[in-house]
Amino acid sequence: MSSEKYAIGVDFGTESGRAAIVDVADGRMLATSVHPYSNGVIDERLPDLDIRLEPDWALQDPNDYIEVYKHAIPAALAESGVDPADVIGVGIDFTACTILPTRADGTPLCFLPEWRANPHAWVKLWKHHAAQPEANKLNAIAYEQGFGDIMDRYGGKISSEWFYPKAWQILDEAPDVYAASERLIEASDWVVWQLTGVETRNSCTAGYKAMWSKSEGFPPNAFFKALDPRLENIVDEKMTREILPLGARAGGLTPEAAAWTGLAPGTAVAIANVDAHVAVPAATVSKPGQMVIIMGTSNCHMVLGEQEAIVPGMCGVVEDGILPNMPGFEAGQSCVGDHFAWFVDNCVPAAYERQAEAEGRSVHELLEEKAAQLQPGESGLLALDWWNGNRSVLVDVDLTGLLIGATLSTKPEDIYRALIEATAYGTKMIVQTFKANGVAVDEIIATGGLPNHNKLLMQIYADVCGLPIYVAEAPQVPALGSAMHGAVSAGTDAGGYGDIVEASKHMARLREEHYVPIPEHAATYEKLYAEYVTLHDYFGRGANDVMKRLKEMKAGIQTG
Amino acid sequence: MSSEKYAIGVDFGTESGRAAIVDVADGRMLATSVHPYSNGVIDERLPDLDIRLEPDWALQDPNDYIEVYKHAIPAALAESGVDPADVIGVGIDFTACTILPTRADGTPLCFLPEWRANPHAWVKLWKHHAAQPEANKLNAIAYEQGFGDIMDRYGGKISSEWFYPKAWQILDEAPDVYAASERLIEASDWVVWQLTGVETRNSCTAGYKAMWSKSEGFPPNAFFKALDPRLENIVDEKMTREILPLGARAGGLTPEAAAWTGLAPGTAVAIANVDAHVAVPAATVSKPGQMVIIMGTSNCHMVLGEQEAIVPGMCGVVEDGILPNMPGFEAGQSCVGDHFAWFVDNCVPAAYERQAEAEGRSVHELLEEKAAQLQPGESGLLALDWWNGNRSVLVDVDLTGLLIGATLSTKPEDIYRALIEATAYGTKMIVQTFKANGVAVDEIIATGGLPNHNKLLMQIYADVCGLPIYVAEAPQVPALGSAMHGAVSAGTDAGGYGDIVEASKHMARLREEHYVPIPEHAATYEKLYAEYVTLHDYFGRGANDVMKRLKEMKAGIQTG
Repeated sequence: MSSEKYAIGVDFGTESGRAAIVDVADGRMLATSVHPYSNGVIDERLPDLDIRLEPDWALQDPNDYIEVYKHAIPAALAESGVDPADVIGVGIDFTACTILPTRADGTPLCFLPEWRANPHAWVKLWKHHAAQPEANKLNAIAYEQGFGDIMDRYGGKISSEWFYPKAWQILDEAPDVYAASERLIEASDWVVWQLTGVETRNSCTAGYKAMWSKSEGFPPNAFFKALDPRLENIVDEKMTREILPLGARAGGLTPEAAAWTGLAPGTAVAIANVDAHVAVPAATVSKPGQMVIIMGTSNCHMVLGEQEAIVPGMCGVVEDGILPNMPGFEAGQSCVGDHFAWFVDNCVPAAYERQAEAEGRSVHELLEEKAAQLQPGESGLLALDWWNGNRSVLVDVDLTGLLIGATLSTKPEDIYRALIEATAYGTKMIVQTFKANGVAVDEIIATGGLPNHNKLLMQIYADVCGLPIYVAEAPQVPALGSAMHGAVSAGTDAGGYGDIVEASKHMARLREEHYVPIPEHAATYEKLYAEYVTLHDYFGRGANDVMKRLKEMKAGIQTG
Repeated sequence: MSSEKYAIGVDFGTESGRAAIVDVADGRMLATSVHPYSNGVIDERLPDLDIRLEPDWALQDPNDYIEVYKHAIPAALAESGVDPADVIGVGIDFTACTILPTRADGTPLCFLPEWRANPHAWVKLWKHHAAQPEANKLNAIAYEQGFGDIMDRYGGKISSEWFYPKAWQILDEAPDVYAASERLIEASDWVVWQLTGVETRNSCTAGYKAMWSKSEGFPPNAFFKALDPRLENIVDEKMTREILPLGARAGGLTPEAAAWTGLAPGTAVAIANVDAHVAVPAATVSKPGQMVIIMGTSNCHMVLGEQEAIVPGMCGVVEDGILPNMPGFEAGQSCVGDHFAWFVDNCVPAAYERQAEAEGRSVHELLEEKAAQLQPGESGLLALDWWNGNRSVLVDVDLTGLLIGATLSTKPEDIYRALIEATAYGTKMIVQTFKANGVAVDEIIATGGLPNHNKLLMQIYADVCGLPIYVAEAPQVPALGSAMHGAVSAGTDAGGYGDIVEASKHMARLREEHYVPIPEHAATYEKLYAEYVTLHDYFGRGANDVMKRLKEMKAGIQTG
């Protein structure tokens, strides 16, 4: 045992889990190891069973999470050379809302032979979208029955991805599975339970995904009864009213979990967290005014506030949701990197592919270089970034993408740049909506995959938003954030930290390289953003619902 | 000399000229020969001279037209085996408005050493677009000075492609060339002059391109004076007030032209015609209610009326403009085949190119097959077909393309089909505008390149327009139409025809295969067309001029 102390962060993603060994003193990442889920995303048929899933389903196998503990932690430990006795705490983060039904002892129903063949017994992954009917019913009933004030905390709409629509889908379609579910639990809390032997529930998923509030608790039973009488007591029957703040100690490692991981029994384990939210302190942010954006296939925007505020169309505001004792606001864009990937897969001509290949680089890189040679406004194009609907401000999955300004001289790089700009306008719309409702946004801290790969995109975001953008230094920000929470759960006596703000000061850093708005670009983008707003409101706020009518027509044809 | 009689049609296109030998009895095409223009479209620098052209310029060399006579006619004659003595008449058609400045004897100024280095001395091709400032001035002044009734015959706007803007550009930029131009003449009339030694002017180009009307003649001198005092006497100084009807005899072949072509001196030559308009009787149409659409890179729509009518946004109405003694209406879409070519060049991924190559067919064919598998409405997409502006109904070159309804599952064939549909909606908009203003359109006769290549497109046009579509049989419809006019110019005594209606009855035919609207498709397209109309009016009639603002911004950046 040395005087150096280490924490472990485990980041459970959509396809794999990653363990990172982090120096508690300075946040240095000594080693990381990734373990892919052998059953991955289950969206066609149940593993080893000839049971097909309906469209929009997305399941996972909870055993895959345990395998991450068994493989990724020992591998990272071995690579780092760290003595397990010097590991003072473990934190985890997870995708959300990802839930599963279990027995009272935590055994997933899908582990039991009598339920294994029922898809509802498995983990419903965040991107399981088959609970849309339940979400629609919930949203309608909540307002009819006078629960609009709760809904306002979530921008007026509960997503089909969240806790109650998914739970209600089980009840609607498999009441026997619902009845056999002694617990309905976030996978994040379930994996902590597997380490500690103790069932806990964290404030982040409870707040953002299950309508919990620190001051008011869960919605009253009357709310659930209004949805469906059988749901009346869901909180007391399947959940718990005891919600713990982030960074709190969930428990100590059980001997069994110690054997899986190679860590010492009793090692502190933090309350679960969500991948996006855990990134905030890992991106150095622990006060209002700094918006953290996780930029990847989609964008997630998080900012701390001075007090709770109702901001139209955000994903949620939760006291203690990101950092203790501050309201955390979340918003999102459902299609960012996905946008560019769609474009590269479907719209880039063979000549560009050949050129990229000849120059030994990716089509993305080639497009970025060509698009970077354009001035703002030079493409003559403007797009609405709704290829995957609109998740924040308008909160409408039935909106679709628009491109305007095309001519016979429009080139692929013009469209590529217009798509980047469109996502930047979408972010500016979110920033402006926060500001207009009293939530300050003075600078942006970016993290995720895109900031490392696309400097053009970063500069465009700075120019469009008119804000400086900094980039978090750590290569694996969520894993760092989880390790930081692990260090907090261990506490100062064990060589950790008293709170996450303290941990952030020591363990998180920004890169030197950052992006500052170029005044002439910002001026042009002001004008283009005004055009974006006009189109955004015309197509998004009911003046012309053509997008929805087209989508309805398409759905009508596809279903027969 | 046999009892069979033949006529020759010469079709002068943008890149080459084509001669066809046609049997006068039944319109059978015995042989055709194409001769490319050696100087093609001159849009970068003058041939053999280091003189660069400005953007938007497009010139030609009149010598290239003479070369067509010298090569294509003898070649076609030789191939056909026809005795030149049995050729009773020659007709020509040309692109329009394509004009050149000449001396009084017809010598092009660009043939003279003192003017050869001046770009304004050359032929200004139809797609020379550098006279837009003059067109803008003309359109503004015409209304200010009370000549709106003349303008109404042209949908309220004179195009920069037409006669006076091009002539005025010469005056503005090269007054010495203007002064030295004893004649300003359509290339169509000039090539007839070269065959006959007689200067004539045809009613088609005079009417559609130079604001002439059978009942009122040219606009009064006061109109031209209002534009620019130096233009006051342009008609008497550079043109002529004697305008001849289509099918009239311009003269007989000169000995020199006979030597070029291998035909007999004195062979009848018809008054010049325009490629699009000459196709109408060649597509069997000689009465109201049948719209001829020439479908190629762009669409040209022509229909005969019972009486003159003012139809908003058409290209023009001219008595005698298509057939004698009937008003001919013309409208157009500036981007049809060009649309699909742009898409294939810029938006089709490498995987599709590889698949097409492996299957030994073109990307167009592959896309057509994939798009044909979609039902109307199934793509979820809608487009405005304004990639090259809007030429009819709105008459606004500053409008641009729009695509709406894109999602992450949108495929190239979805977009391809949406672009085809958009051009079909554009045609329906023209049809509906004619009908709403008292000009009947009961069926469509298609000709041009597209009807031969794209059955899907033809069916979509039938479904969208709700009209049957027939296809002209001749492989080279304009050349047939020109030969028909040649046969009329020869007259009945020589074995030709008394008028073009008679010629059309004998020489023109439709194919058996035609396209009839599929009722369920037509019903879906009714709904989609309603959406198109809403967007067409919103973006095209001033509610939101975003397209123009984007284009202005782009132009501002590109010019400095």
